[in-house]
Amino acid sequence: MDFEKLEELLSEKNYPLLKSELKSLEPVDIAEYIDDLEEKKALIVFRLLPKEKAADVFSYLSTDKQLEISDLINEKELAAIISDLYFDDKVDLLEEMPANAVKKILQNTTAVERKLINQFLMYPENSAGSLMTIEFVDLKKEMTVGEALERIRRSAPDKITIYTCYVTDGKRYLEGTVSLKDLVLAKTETRIEDIIRKDAISVNTHDDQEEIADIFKRYDLLALPVVDNENRLVGIITVDDIVDVIEQENTEDFHKMAAIEPIDEEYINVGVFKLARKRILWLVALMISATFTGYIIQSFEDVLQSVVALAAFIPMLMNTGGNAGAQVSALVIRSIVLGEVTFGDLFRIIWKEARISMVVGSGLAVFNFLRIYFLERYPLTIALTVSLTLIFTVITAKIMGGILPLLAKKLKLDPAVMASPMITTIVDAVSLIIYFSFATWLLDVNA
Amino acid sequence: MDFEKLEELLSEKNYPLLKSELKSLEPVDIAEYIDDLEEKKALIVFRLLPKEKAADVFSYLSTDKQLEISDLINEKELAAIISDLYFDDKVDLLEEMPANAVKKILQNTTAVERKLINQFLMYPENSAGSLMTIEFVDLKKEMTVGEALERIRRSAPDKITIYTCYVTDGKRYLEGTVSLKDLVLAKTETRIEDIIRKDAISVNTHDDQEEIADIFKRYDLLALPVVDNENRLVGIITVDDIVDVIEQENTEDFHKMAAIEPIDEEYINVGVFKLARKRILWLVALMISATFTGYIIQSFEDVLQSVVALAAFIPMLMNTGGNAGAQVSALVIRSIVLGEVTFGDLFRIIWKEARISMVVGSGLAVFNFLRIYFLERYPLTIALTVSLTLIFTVITAKIMGGILPLLAKKLKLDPAVMASPMITTIVDAVSLIIYFSFATWLLDVNA
Repeated sequence: MDFEKLEELLSEKNYPLLKSELKSLEPVDIAEYIDDLEEKKALIVFRLLPKEKAADVFSYLSTDKQLEISDLINEKELAAIISDLYFDDKVDLLEEMPANAVKKILQNTTAVERKLINQFLMYPENSAGSLMTIEFVDLKKEMTVGEALERIRRSAPDKITIYTCYVTDGKRYLEGTVSLKDLVLAKTETRIEDIIRKDAISVNTHDDQEEIADIFKRYDLLALPVVDNENRLVGIITVDDIVDVIEQENTEDFHKMAAIEPIDEEYINVGVFKLARKRILWLVALMISATFTGYIIQSFEDVLQSVVALAAFIPMLMNTGGNAGAQVSALVIRSIVLGEVTFGDLFRIIWKEARISMVVGSGLAVFNFLRIYFLERYPLTIALTVSLTLIFTVITAKIMGGILPLLAKKLKLDPAVMASPMITTIVDAVSLIIYFSFATWLLDVNA
Repeated sequence: MDFEKLEELLSEKNYPLLKSELKSLEPVDIAEYIDDLEEKKALIVFRLLPKEKAADVFSYLSTDKQLEISDLINEKELAAIISDLYFDDKVDLLEEMPANAVKKILQNTTAVERKLINQFLMYPENSAGSLMTIEFVDLKKEMTVGEALERIRRSAPDKITIYTCYVTDGKRYLEGTVSLKDLVLAKTETRIEDIIRKDAISVNTHDDQEEIADIFKRYDLLALPVVDNENRLVGIITVDDIVDVIEQENTEDFHKMAAIEPIDEEYINVGVFKLARKRILWLVALMISATFTGYIIQSFEDVLQSVVALAAFIPMLMNTGGNAGAQVSALVIRSIVLGEVTFGDLFRIIWKEARISMVVGSGLAVFNFLRIYFLERYPLTIALTVSLTLIFTVITAKIMGGILPLLAKKLKLDPAVMASPMITTIVDAVSLIIYFSFATWLLDVNA
């Protein structure tokens, strides 16, 4: 977005025109603009917003800016904004606020809402409960379509969606769903029970967001009802929040595959020590495992001493092995996440990768042999040692890269943490042993 | 999904019960079931489907199964299914079919549709044109809400969504949108022009799907209109297709970051040679660049000859450098994709990573020094050489990992291809030079 015009109007203090400009902008764009302003200016712009837009813009602000603005505006203004927020945004905000501010806000709410807020605050992170909101349309199966539409009309402005409506009985048990499309297509006097879809998919408040995202993807849903352990309808999740969940889960996988503990804030806003902490443990673990590679080299020190030229090829062998393994593990991990492969495909994958690694390994070996023997004029035995090792390294790497993620999944570990660094370490060790074994054999030196 | 019951009914040839079971299942689940059946059984189950469900199930089948079933059913059946498919699914199918089959099918369509199909077949892959479909509701601004609802009611069964309707003028120019919510809330006699939203976001047929997904995410949309170069409305894209695009784009990034050319089919279904081809070029490129590392070792062969113990620490140093760099590049690449950082943040990131790498590097170096000097009882000079190199390696790796993706983005290259393998190669070279320089200096040997 380009905020130059707004910036100009703000610095000219042309508030009437700024106000009318803001009217035509999307809330998310206004929020981005306010996020970058300093305290005083942010407050001015925020107060220029039309009343019905303020809560919407507020919900898109960064948490820091939300807290900053909450501090600056008076209690009455804050109460108005908070009461206009959707329930899930309200809970998210309260979660971030200092305890005494929360207390003040809760004083202004009804006992029922207070109880509900406390209940929502207790749902585990990344659960359906923490994602859902309560602004859904509920209908009764005895209603006629006309009555239902009338009810929707009355309550629509406060609802997060009216396109799927939920049919509950007197005890709030979920009986089924009716889409607005069904309602519009039906005759006014038809009863809801005649058009209800009974086999509505629902999830439990404690279900994990990753599974919920999979359900949305599979069934192309716009919204999904959430029930408690007694099968009472307690909230709904909408597809726009699921899109965010998908990106969040993918980010987590990217982090894990790069051997970082997942970070759920924006990288640029996280402190140095927190970032260091998220990385160092994995680096230490991988450093320790890499020392085993060192021991292998150490134990072949005599071979290396007599043909020191061998050392020059170690980085190339190790890198190629690491890269070849990472290629497979990335493919397999991603396929597991997308539900395309399971542990049952293990042997199919091994067989596939065995063949691929023959093709790729031989190609690389030939290329390498030509380079070392003809171009760099090393002795034939060295060229052979390096090239043969390369084939076996690629085969080992590709097969390990295929097996390890599936094995992790089977053991209920996270495949993404089994990723490239781990495989690299194993492949390094194996390839060095092969390398020095070939060297001992072909170069006629004694280990 | 658990298909045992269906399997049982099928093998018992209890078709009436199987048929009624299929009735209550979701199309996507039925498609998964049929996908795993052999030809003859697949055809039996497919023919048991209720007529109104057949096209829907068909659209969820794998391409192979679609072609198989198209071959087995008679021309009339095929024509019925194809005419029931949404236009985007129809085009996708025709794209995969052999030319003579396509010709036969096109003979049964009207001249107008034939022209439209040919036009759709020409949109570039991953463009808005290739994602959109034509089953949207279009309204005129002179209509009343009552007339609009009547029009929606008549055409709804064939529309992909009725929740957003599009207002066009006589020349098909997009004038704005009206949501079904607005229509339901408005009075019957209100005119569409009084409730139209004029500043509707739209995209061009040639826009890339990644940008379109960003728009959906930013504005929490359910559907988005697509216009041609003359701003005429030609189709719409719905959020369920965008969810697939997001996963596809993420898969592409996972592949690229693992140095594979992106594969858009399911890994398990791709042939050995195609997979080998997608990987070998990158492996060769990285192998060549890793040979530079070899040259560095070669040029310090004398140092290595006099203190061969140095070789044992090369893998640990290289791996730690590679991992430290990959951690940062993954974070930064992901942040670029999510729009959280831009090239303007370059110095902020360098400064951040400089500090993080001091913390992390020093920690690793101390740990390492203790291990090498006290535990493994190497001479002090070797312990110092390795530990000091480690600090510099981590600093170099983390700063390179931060800079390279941003630089790539600035140069309009893909940040994901600048990922770990590339950085590893650079960091390897730098760390070896540092290593041998420290060794020459501290161990008092001559390079």
